[in-house]
Amino acid sequence: MSKTVTLTSYIPSGNPENKHFTIQETVQPTADDLETGDLLLQSMVMSADPYLRSGCKSEEKGGPIPRPMTGFVAGKVLASKLDGWVAGDLFSASLPFCDVQVLKGKDARGALLLKLTGKVEEKNISHGIGVMGMPGSTAYGGLLDVLRPEKDREANGKKPETIWVSGAAGAVGSVVGQIAKQVFGCTVVGSCGGPEKGQLCRDVFGFDHVVDYKTVSTADELVAKLKECVPEGIDMYFENVGGMHFEAAMKVLRPHGRVAVCGGIARYNEGERQAERFFPTDMIYSFQRVEGFMCLPWLSGQKGNFLDDMGRWIKELKVVPEETFFQGIEAWPMAFQALFTGKNVGKVVVRV
Amino acid sequence: MSKTVTLTSYIPSGNPENKHFTIQETVQPTADDLETGDLLLQSMVMSADPYLRSGCKSEEKGGPIPRPMTGFVAGKVLASKLDGWVAGDLFSASLPFCDVQVLKGKDARGALLLKLTGKVEEKNISHGIGVMGMPGSTAYGGLLDVLRPEKDREANGKKPETIWVSGAAGAVGSVVGQIAKQVFGCTVVGSCGGPEKGQLCRDVFGFDHVVDYKTVSTADELVAKLKECVPEGIDMYFENVGGMHFEAAMKVLRPHGRVAVCGGIARYNEGERQAERFFPTDMIYSFQRVEGFMCLPWLSGQKGNFLDDMGRWIKELKVVPEETFFQGIEAWPMAFQALFTGKNVGKVVVRV
Repeated sequence: MSKTVTLTSYIPSGNPENKHFTIQETVQPTADDLETGDLLLQSMVMSADPYLRSGCKSEEKGGPIPRPMTGFVAGKVLASKLDGWVAGDLFSASLPFCDVQVLKGKDARGALLLKLTGKVEEKNISHGIGVMGMPGSTAYGGLLDVLRPEKDREANGKKPETIWVSGAAGAVGSVVGQIAKQVFGCTVVGSCGGPEKGQLCRDVFGFDHVVDYKTVSTADELVAKLKECVPEGIDMYFENVGGMHFEAAMKVLRPHGRVAVCGGIARYNEGERQAERFFPTDMIYSFQRVEGFMCLPWLSGQKGNFLDDMGRWIKELKVVPEETFFQGIEAWPMAFQALFTGKNVGKVVVRV
Repeated sequence: MSKTVTLTSYIPSGNPENKHFTIQETVQPTADDLETGDLLLQSMVMSADPYLRSGCKSEEKGGPIPRPMTGFVAGKVLASKLDGWVAGDLFSASLPFCDVQVLKGKDARGALLLKLTGKVEEKNISHGIGVMGMPGSTAYGGLLDVLRPEKDREANGKKPETIWVSGAAGAVGSVVGQIAKQVFGCTVVGSCGGPEKGQLCRDVFGFDHVVDYKTVSTADELVAKLKECVPEGIDMYFENVGGMHFEAAMKVLRPHGRVAVCGGIARYNEGERQAERFFPTDMIYSFQRVEGFMCLPWLSGQKGNFLDDMGRWIKELKVVPEETFFQGIEAWPMAFQALFTGKNVGKVVVRV
């Protein structure tokens, strides 16, 4: 039988819990079920990501229930009737969280099907949903093309630019900070919750400064913590969190500062969502910019050279992938919960 | 004697009034007072602009009082000891609102001194503080380089992009909308207060749609009015106003939409300023951008070809300058007040 993670009740507010999900069993498809253009896929790893929270809120947000949870998986092709693909190929795609399934040829593009063969080793297949997948391409695109760290500053006698990354121990933030530090030479401030994550950011990721947001409760207190690290403020902010983080970032953002809006996990469990406090006129004389983005242009290869660049940076040890593993498809709901209770570091991966 | 508009009491909140200002008289300088590098300048016109409101609020914002009000003036050189300048040259600069004054050579750059001879006729000297000056370059830079209307859409079989300009009958907004319409072929929605300004926007400036913001009192009501004009929303928003205007703009902003933040006059009279309600995560999947800017790079010629382009568009009647005149330096406080009570259309000019 195939197993599929299934949402069985809406979660209008609050943390996701086990009771909201079930593992549904269905007859397992085989190579005999394939038509021309189809692939039979074995999921080896499944992703749990904060962006999935929104679709759980209501029928309006994500459609009727029960329904399969859908997100990034990576694994192996069991059988192929699709040109260019053979059994044994490694893949990643956005699909139902199901262990064995058929991907119809017509759906391949919509599922963001990527071939990982030659890019990711099978033992590192989890990278296909992490540093070499959606979160990695989010970090890559957001930093290189949205924030755009200024190049050659030292050659021009300037100090490096400063970047603050929130959710710095997470799947996206950890990669943003490492690229900023190792590739662009930025001064990196990472914020995260608790001393263990802070130590990881400093010792493993090499960030210059760490702020534990759990030690403060207002934007002004967070500003004070940031100013202890970087008294002159920040040139870039990579936004994964929202709430007091966003307000504090705008208060310490320097002239020509940029904010890349990638997520706002602090608000994902809210029922009626709250607005951020924002002063657009503060951006006028300072030529500041706030810009939203998601990974698609870079993950699809439409922009940049994500897989090649990131693969090289990993080999050069400029980017160290960090992962938290959960075992078995039955553990997916727990893995998802961990994102909102701060129990993960790096990429949350469910090994099937 | 020389006359100078002087701030005599702070205006922490509320509309500016005559009582906050005085006209101070001092001995008039002559050519004999010039040292090498200096100019003796006769102001013919003085500008009143919303951005001057902030400096009136407190010592912290603008320095101790009494002090001269400083802003853009245009006029004629009476005597010159500065290379490249001769008596009779036309100029614009950011200077104290004084009828006859010496500009020291070392201060010329900081005063944004521009030679208008050959660019603006003497009978149109007011253009030097309007469409060919700070407000014009604000409109030019904000539209061309911050909002960046997509070119050649019709050739590619696409509908024109839609822009909403707030403060549409004002010095900046009227020029933004006309360039967007006449040069870029955009669909233009202008918002302003009252039917007379609306008629001007439609009949003289040629905007496609007009919204009278005085007929609504909430962001949602403003959204409804905008959707009557442009049901599919807007691609660009030129922000001059703030408050419900900003919130409404974000609600009708389409994917890949851009907001250029130029001003926020709705909040300039506030004592303790209020934050805008803002939902940054709405910008993620839509790749939206909010960016602040002011005129300096374009006015100074560092970016673009402002004076040449704008001069040509005026000759081609693509941009029709609109001005409201006040007579005499003594009228400057009244001219300034008109900006906040909505009594002006186009550029507010004080003829000296």
